[in-house]
Amino acid sequence: MIVRHIPSWFRLLFVWHGSVLPRIWPRLLMVLAVGLVAAGLRHWWLQSLRDSSLSIPTFTLLGVSLAIFLGFRNSVSYDRFWEARKLWGALLIASRSLTRQMLAALGDNDDSSRFIDGVCAFAYALKAQLRGQDAEAQLRRLLPAEALEKVLAGSFRPALILVWLGREAQRLQRAGQLSELQWHALDRNLNTLSEILGGCERIASTPMPFTYRVLLNRTITIYCLLLPAGLVTSIGWLTPPIAVFIAYTYFALEQIAEELEEPFGTEGNDLPLATLCHTIEASLREMQGLPLQPPPPRQGIYLH
Amino acid sequence: MIVRHIPSWFRLLFVWHGSVLPRIWPRLLMVLAVGLVAAGLRHWWLQSLRDSSLSIPTFTLLGVSLAIFLGFRNSVSYDRFWEARKLWGALLIASRSLTRQMLAALGDNDDSSRFIDGVCAFAYALKAQLRGQDAEAQLRRLLPAEALEKVLAGSFRPALILVWLGREAQRLQRAGQLSELQWHALDRNLNTLSEILGGCERIASTPMPFTYRVLLNRTITIYCLLLPAGLVTSIGWLTPPIAVFIAYTYFALEQIAEELEEPFGTEGNDLPLATLCHTIEASLREMQGLPLQPPPPRQGIYLH
Amino acid sequence: MIVRHIPSWFRLLFVWHGSVLPRIWPRLLMVLAVGLVAAGLRHWWLQSLRDSSLSIPTFTLLGVSLAIFLGFRNSVSYDRFWEARKLWGALLIASRSLTRQMLAALGDNDDSSRFIDGVCAFAYALKAQLRGQDAEAQLRRLLPAEALEKVLAGSFRPALILVWLGREAQRLQRAGQLSELQWHALDRNLNTLSEILGGCERIASTPMPFTYRVLLNRTITIYCLLLPAGLVTSIGWLTPPIAVFIAYTYFALEQIAEELEEPFGTEGNDLPLATLCHTIEASLREMQGLPLQPPPPRQGIYLH
Amino acid sequence: MIVRHIPSWFRLLFVWHGSVLPRIWPRLLMVLAVGLVAAGLRHWWLQSLRDSSLSIPTFTLLGVSLAIFLGFRNSVSYDRFWEARKLWGALLIASRSLTRQMLAALGDNDDSSRFIDGVCAFAYALKAQLRGQDAEAQLRRLLPAEALEKVLAGSFRPALILVWLGREAQRLQRAGQLSELQWHALDRNLNTLSEILGGCERIASTPMPFTYRVLLNRTITIYCLLLPAGLVTSIGWLTPPIAVFIAYTYFALEQIAEELEEPFGTEGNDLPLATLCHTIEASLREMQGLPLQPPPPRQGIYLH
Amino acid sequence: MIVRHIPSWFRLLFVWHGSVLPRIWPRLLMVLAVGLVAAGLRHWWLQSLRDSSLSIPTFTLLGVSLAIFLGFRNSVSYDRFWEARKLWGALLIASRSLTRQMLAALGDNDDSSRFIDGVCAFAYALKAQLRGQDAEAQLRRLLPAEALEKVLAGSFRPALILVWLGREAQRLQRAGQLSELQWHALDRNLNTLSEILGGCERIASTPMPFTYRVLLNRTITIYCLLLPAGLVTSIGWLTPPIAVFIAYTYFALEQIAEELEEPFGTEGNDLPLATLCHTIEASLREMQGLPLQPPPPRQGIYLH
Repeated sequence: MIVRHIPSWFRLLFVWHGSVLPRIWPRLLMVLAVGLVAAGLRHWWLQSLRDSSLSIPTFTLLGVSLAIFLGFRNSVSYDRFWEARKLWGALLIASRSLTRQMLAALGDNDDSSRFIDGVCAFAYALKAQLRGQDAEAQLRRLLPAEALEKVLAGSFRPALILVWLGREAQRLQRAGQLSELQWHALDRNLNTLSEILGGCERIASTPMPFTYRVLLNRTITIYCLLLPAGLVTSIGWLTPPIAVFIAYTYFALEQIAEELEEPFGTEGNDLPLATLCHTIEASLREMQGLPLQPPPPRQGIYLH
Repeated sequence: MIVRHIPSWFRLLFVWHGSVLPRIWPRLLMVLAVGLVAAGLRHWWLQSLRDSSLSIPTFTLLGVSLAIFLGFRNSVSYDRFWEARKLWGALLIASRSLTRQMLAALGDNDDSSRFIDGVCAFAYALKAQLRGQDAEAQLRRLLPAEALEKVLAGSFRPALILVWLGREAQRLQRAGQLSELQWHALDRNLNTLSEILGGCERIASTPMPFTYRVLLNRTITIYCLLLPAGLVTSIGWLTPPIAVFIAYTYFALEQIAEELEEPFGTEGNDLPLATLCHTIEASLREMQGLPLQPPPPRQGIYLH
Repeated sequence: MIVRHIPSWFRLLFVWHGSVLPRIWPRLLMVLAVGLVAAGLRHWWLQSLRDSSLSIPTFTLLGVSLAIFLGFRNSVSYDRFWEARKLWGALLIASRSLTRQMLAALGDNDDSSRFIDGVCAFAYALKAQLRGQDAEAQLRRLLPAEALEKVLAGSFRPALILVWLGREAQRLQRAGQLSELQWHALDRNLNTLSEILGGCERIASTPMPFTYRVLLNRTITIYCLLLPAGLVTSIGWLTPPIAVFIAYTYFALEQIAEELEEPFGTEGNDLPLATLCHTIEASLREMQGLPLQPPPPRQGIYLH
Repeated sequence: MIVRHIPSWFRLLFVWHGSVLPRIWPRLLMVLAVGLVAAGLRHWWLQSLRDSSLSIPTFTLLGVSLAIFLGFRNSVSYDRFWEARKLWGALLIASRSLTRQMLAALGDNDDSSRFIDGVCAFAYALKAQLRGQDAEAQLRRLLPAEALEKVLAGSFRPALILVWLGREAQRLQRAGQLSELQWHALDRNLNTLSEILGGCERIASTPMPFTYRVLLNRTITIYCLLLPAGLVTSIGWLTPPIAVFIAYTYFALEQIAEELEEPFGTEGNDLPLATLCHTIEASLREMQGLPLQPPPPRQGIYLH
Repeated sequence: MIVRHIPSWFRLLFVWHGSVLPRIWPRLLMVLAVGLVAAGLRHWWLQSLRDSSLSIPTFTLLGVSLAIFLGFRNSVSYDRFWEARKLWGALLIASRSLTRQMLAALGDNDDSSRFIDGVCAFAYALKAQLRGQDAEAQLRRLLPAEALEKVLAGSFRPALILVWLGREAQRLQRAGQLSELQWHALDRNLNTLSEILGGCERIASTPMPFTYRVLLNRTITIYCLLLPAGLVTSIGWLTPPIAVFIAYTYFALEQIAEELEEPFGTEGNDLPLATLCHTIEASLREMQGLPLQPPPPRQGIYLH
């Protein structure tokens, strides 16, 4: 045989849970039904309404503007996903830089580990805010009592943690443990945390303009439901499967765009924020020479 | 039944106010009228002018350059919208960073809250300048008397608030309340506010070149009005609905692009500047441990 | 009546001066002439050269590569325009930041207003260099004698103004009027002015590669002149208007791209540098509490 | 003869190992087989199933959404590749800047060469982490004993090297060998190393969303296997070669996208990390005036 | 007459040296030959192989994936060209900033002019490294003896010049001629030079992945050679000129992409590095009040 192992392109053909089929099969079924009706009635239709039947060129014409829409929608959604990922990558980077600076300045003492735990708490609080969850357990574990109270009372918790980190850095500088420039270097990385927080909030609070979604959904749905009427004059009984195949590409692309658009959820394609928080904590602990903790259960299918 | 709840893709089909239909239905009606005329006259036309009738391939040909236009126009408009959103996100970020730095340096005293109120005032003044509104009420509430007078007398109010914030930071530094480096860190964030101001002014004062709008509007309108003449030879009495459907995709996309292009207005798709200002003030108040205020009434349909 | 006021999409159909028609009508007239000849000779042509006639699919085929070209050319030209606009926006931002820093450090004294006038002079000198004009009048008004002489003698005048601003900042620091860090903060904004200068020079001195222009112009011209021969077999006497319409979209898009590509000129679509310079000066004067001056006459049609 | 030397475009036609043919020929063979069957059975098929046969316009219709997919997939993959390359370019840049700063501050002494060796070690450790290799040999060669132990014990080795570099810079500053500002300048470049590390980890740990791969693979495979059925009604016995040619363009583009997507591997199109590490070490050694070492064996086919 | 002067679009039709025709005419001639053969043999072919002949829709189908390729290739190549131009623009900017800082700090003395000459030398050395040339003459002119020896002995010469500039800045700071912060401001611009060097090296050392070139060249060549077979059934004796015209657009676009991809060469479309170096030196000399030198001979056709 040519192929000894099943190649990946072949296996991917039969994937169910990793694809968007579970979410779009009802619509595909509708297209199939319309396709079957169209194929069954086509002789009657063509005879009674000779010169008033759709054909493939009509759909090619429409395809142009649909292509613009879908391509645009898709790029915007992916860019949101990727920007969100970059922000969480930047969070890991800034957390490590703060840790490095603290360890270099203070060494492994109580003050530095308090501060670094606060940086960890920021990550958990950000995750909780983005997902509408409650990070109280993690915050209790990581924040000292005096900060905890204020943070838990607030509604913009990550911002309050930043306030506390700012005060803490200032306190250490006044106590002579940080030089002016060391404080300045820390402060710049706190600014970066602030930028990450604001960036995530922006993505979470500003979806794609609603009119785009209405327009795209409407156009694609009508297009796919009309499609069998256009195909049937050319390809007869092949209409149902081919129409479903074409509709699949459109519905699937729209569905993926819809899922990626909100990258902070808990579905398959969303960012694995729990894992990312764990990675941050693990990395900061390792930098302090502390033992690592077991990772959280995997979320979704695609990411580590 | 397959679908127990009405799925979102189905509901979106019948949305009226969230879509652009309220703004484009007159044009769609015109296309419908032309389509009905074309369908009624088609036998007479085809007999008398045998070889001089339009057909679908002619429109496919044109569709290519239209696709370039629309796609380009759309990307540019969305980029303007998203850049405007990023600038307001950056305003929240910089305001929080300034607040954090002030609170860390001075604690909760009169000077810090004066300064932080000034940062809030900057946001309100920027909103007012971009919308051609008057922010006097907010400025009176947030600015001290000595700054208020100068700011209200000027025409570039946010810039004047920045001047005052700069002088204030300098005063605090001279009074020994801020160290040189703390002043420097504040000054960098004031630079950021200046960048945000300039960026918003740029978007507000430089629309897309007028010739683009003329060209795109002209091409799409002529295209859609000619379309029935091209479709009627192929699809007869189906011409009116199909022509309206195709025209809908073009007109709607152009309309959305037109609305997103100016993101600082007060229509449905524009940025909810009032809400954003309120979020900034609420976040800065929370960071200072002050009670929150009720949010303003919602603007538009799509944003929080 | 459905429409009480004339809607904007209708008015835009008949715009002449804001569109590119005044620059492309000779070429459109040529296409019209070819279209009329083709329509008149089509019977003779089809009989004598049966199987050697062009048709629409041939042009659809070509349309693909033309679409790539035009879309690419257009994006590049617009990006140049928008980058130029961003640079001038950044100039306003940096000028204001320098003014804020100066006013905060020195207050309203002679030294600060000398320096701020120098920043204004930079804007006028940059405009003059980009347009090949002479800014002597403005420079005489804004620069002190000792700087004026050197600047007027040079060929890279904005760079020489920056040298003077750098020396001036240094002098003020040595005289104890600026602290080391205040000097540093100013110096960073002088770096930004240097970046703006270099960015504008880059755009002005590096047009799009010449071969692109040759290729695109050649392809579009030949395409549009051949077009009537392809359309005439399908649409007969409708060839002349339709060919002109299609040619209009191509020529117009190319023309706009050509005009936007050089954003520093004085034509309708170019950046209103005089207005931008005036805005900068007005804003800096207002920040110093000085009275404003009347704006310059409007340039072009689209911008304030 | 017109062409004296074999021109490059001609040679490229027959390249085997540099192309993706070795990875996609099984799929091309399948398309060929389907094409031969279709061509052989076409008369029987057309007679028995008159009005139910596929044709080229059906595939043109589908081609639109495929084009969106492939173009998007391809851009994303290339952007990942190019971002990875930029990060490694930034690593060279930051390493050189750190070296320049160390040499300027300390001259060629033991402390500076220890530090610079540590920067080299960072590059090797990053390469090893991205490829799942073990850099122990290189680390032993470049790191001092006290750092080596901790680094080898950890799982995020490059981050641990950064911690050590941070402590080292701090130590030198405390010992008076670096001024505060020199330490600050070094610290900023250490931040840059941290950003490079985080950026590479992000690319390595976040592949393109799995559903995209499933969707694209499925659509292209089905499309190419159906293609002969569509072509055979128009082009008969030319179906097999033409179908293979078209399938080649789709499969090859998908395959390239798949290979570029993970730029840190060891295949032909991946980044030559070994060579890049060697360049970094060679450049840093030369800056210190040390003799160069021989380059490693070439990886892959495409670089330098 | 309508047109009094020959308009530019007309002149561009007949450009030879500025276009890519000199490099692609052999391939166009091949397409012409195939076209003539196809036109001559078409009756025989159509009779003997009735249902196995290519037609235009087959090529439209293929055109889609070709369009993706070409557009992508073209954007990538132009981005490389433009990034290279930006890096050289940034070199001018950073050189001027270094000069401004030096002049402000030291005035016009020997130390400052030594340093500024070193910055000039960096530009010449970078040009020489990118082009594989030898800049010894310029380096001898601009570098002092102690630096020259080390630089000429090395293989990464611009990096060695940066080392020397770093040591020089340090020396001036230790000698009290530069304050700590002035040294810091210079050091940041030296970092920028390091980034420019690394960016240029990256572009020069990492071409587009080889497989892309293979795939694109192969697809376009086969497509254009098959094209006459597809056109001949529809357009008969018009096949040769039309096939050559279509092939011209494809070959020309590929050729331009190939030339822009390596922007540091010495061909017509490459960056005029000699002129850019001269501009840098002229600008730095003018800033120091030194007389200018004559510009070098022009390179290529398109740039100043």
